[in-house]
Amino acid sequence: MNVYGRPTRTLWPGADGVSVEIIDQTRLPHEFVTARLGTIADAAHAIKAMLVRGAPLIGATAAYGLWLGLRTDASDTALREHSATLAATRPTAINLRWALERVTRAVSPLPPVERAAAARRLAAEICDEDVAINRGIGNAGLALIRAVAARKPAGEPVNVLTHCNAGWLATVDLGTATAPIYLAHDSGLPVHVWVDETRPRNQGAGLTAWELAEHGVPHTVIVDNAGGHLMQHGKVDLVIVGTDRTTATGDVCNKIGTYLKALAAHDNGVPFYVALPSPTIDWTVRDGISEIPIEERAATEVTHLTGVTSDGALATVRLTPPDSPAANPAFDVTPARLVTGLITERGVCRANEAALRHLFPLAERV
Amino acid sequence: MNVYGRPTRTLWPGADGVSVEIIDQTRLPHEFVTARLGTIADAAHAIKAMLVRGAPLIGATAAYGLWLGLRTDASDTALREHSATLAATRPTAINLRWALERVTRAVSPLPPVERAAAARRLAAEICDEDVAINRGIGNAGLALIRAVAARKPAGEPVNVLTHCNAGWLATVDLGTATAPIYLAHDSGLPVHVWVDETRPRNQGAGLTAWELAEHGVPHTVIVDNAGGHLMQHGKVDLVIVGTDRTTATGDVCNKIGTYLKALAAHDNGVPFYVALPSPTIDWTVRDGISEIPIEERAATEVTHLTGVTSDGALATVRLTPPDSPAANPAFDVTPARLVTGLITERGVCRANEAALRHLFPLAERV
Repeated sequence: MNVYGRPTRTLWPGADGVSVEIIDQTRLPHEFVTARLGTIADAAHAIKAMLVRGAPLIGATAAYGLWLGLRTDASDTALREHSATLAATRPTAINLRWALERVTRAVSPLPPVERAAAARRLAAEICDEDVAINRGIGNAGLALIRAVAARKPAGEPVNVLTHCNAGWLATVDLGTATAPIYLAHDSGLPVHVWVDETRPRNQGAGLTAWELAEHGVPHTVIVDNAGGHLMQHGKVDLVIVGTDRTTATGDVCNKIGTYLKALAAHDNGVPFYVALPSPTIDWTVRDGISEIPIEERAATEVTHLTGVTSDGALATVRLTPPDSPAANPAFDVTPARLVTGLITERGVCRANEAALRHLFPLAERV
Repeated sequence: MNVYGRPTRTLWPGADGVSVEIIDQTRLPHEFVTARLGTIADAAHAIKAMLVRGAPLIGATAAYGLWLGLRTDASDTALREHSATLAATRPTAINLRWALERVTRAVSPLPPVERAAAARRLAAEICDEDVAINRGIGNAGLALIRAVAARKPAGEPVNVLTHCNAGWLATVDLGTATAPIYLAHDSGLPVHVWVDETRPRNQGAGLTAWELAEHGVPHTVIVDNAGGHLMQHGKVDLVIVGTDRTTATGDVCNKIGTYLKALAAHDNGVPFYVALPSPTIDWTVRDGISEIPIEERAATEVTHLTGVTSDGALATVRLTPPDSPAANPAFDVTPARLVTGLITERGVCRANEAALRHLFPLAERV
């Protein structure tokens, strides 16, 4: 996607040959700042502090992080330690583990001296694959949007609601939930996006709105409370969200609040789709609600909030009384029964095990 | 309820005899500031700008506002104009119209010279009635909380989730949704409240948390996205919310996002109760979703947010990219089918017309 009109990925190899560069997403939408990751500690910090976020981008950053670690020490012990360091940054993200295991598997058989270079090549490959996957999701989802448009009066925009940022910024390029939207917009099909602000970290208001605005896609920011009301009044044609982890049975673990939107969509007959890059499928989990550990993040994400003042300075303000505690579960699980379909890079399927297995017959079994 | 340990109502006649005083709720939880309303314009501003909010308190303020208007001009024409001015401040609030009609009906037959004094007496009566109503709701709801507590291990708190502020601050005293909670707490029954922050105006994080903290009730602030997840994991025993307007058939129009919590409660078998002072019943409306006009408030409530910085100053920050539009519907409608029961000042009833009529047989028919 474009930033200031220039095609840009969210992560790219540094010109010095010994680093990777990223966009510091904690500064968006108020400032566009890039950051250089020169060590595995830099990469771990970038993931943990959410300079990069979004399952696919976390996976890509972790792969490059392993490269950075192996540049310093490529012994068997170090390889295990590097992987553990990176895996500990975000417990819920399945792509993180997937990327680390993939790189580890590929470099383990090699002599230590060859491991860093191999990890770097594979990290680049993971990035390119992510873009290809998102293009596949985009094309599959575009067909869904076209079908909705065909049932509406000509020229009337298709209204898509999305939660959090499963956008370009969450991936290496194009996004997952946003890929169908960008392809529709680029093909001249009118779309309008309802952007959930997505408290507590406001990835919708801060990131999705920003990237849609950069790309010129019509959109409206709403609070997370508003989607049900809009659906009751026919103002949402379909919902497309991302996923951090999807079970073998089609339960979807995604940003906190996704479940509430799925309930509202179900109650109002609005199709609820999940854009699902296959690396986020966790074939080892069958019951999302009871089996997936939900990351509890800092209470300050709820009690405090950062924005920009009228004179352009970033400021952090407290919203709550000083003595009121806060809880901050970061994800919830939407049961498969509420999901109309999964938009994968191989096409759209129903949210159940048979349908997923039909599309991905060779995926790892456990 | 207590403020700084001193029993305080949310509105009281000014010591000068020609004004009414209120708490400026836009400054909470960061500052406790009172404001003097000396004219009908002051009263209209206080309602419109939400210095006072909450259906019962809006009604009480409007009644005093009519008194302030009649002090200046008590002619028939002026009476109509005063009432219209106040009615226009918040289109969704049914109590507002109810209070205005009640005062208008009472003072119309009087000679103009007697109207102001009569309006003032009636406004005071409306305030006292509100407190009595809330005590009735509190006692009815307390029985529900006791029943839940009886099914839990001894000493384990009953977890109540609430949305927005249907608390002491939304009424003249005690609150509606909070009345059962305060009575339970005061009677030694352990309760813990999950407080939805309630974007965009954060009445939960700012007001409910503040008044619960003042009264010493254990509570935890959560983002509006979190309630569904907590219910999935058995962490909510019951939901109690308020209502701005309830139809004759039991549909509940309340703060935006209430509907999403009702869906989650229904999906998880969690009882969903609405604290309903009978003046908020609109006997003229049968279908809440299609008939109740939903107030669309300023987009800046979504795009900007005010809090307190680390050095104690109030600051307003923008959350969104400068060019992203926002929409801000202030209420939604929860269909009666999702409501376990209505907690009224005359007891708890099911959310349907027959049950409401059984409790309120003499309420105005249209």
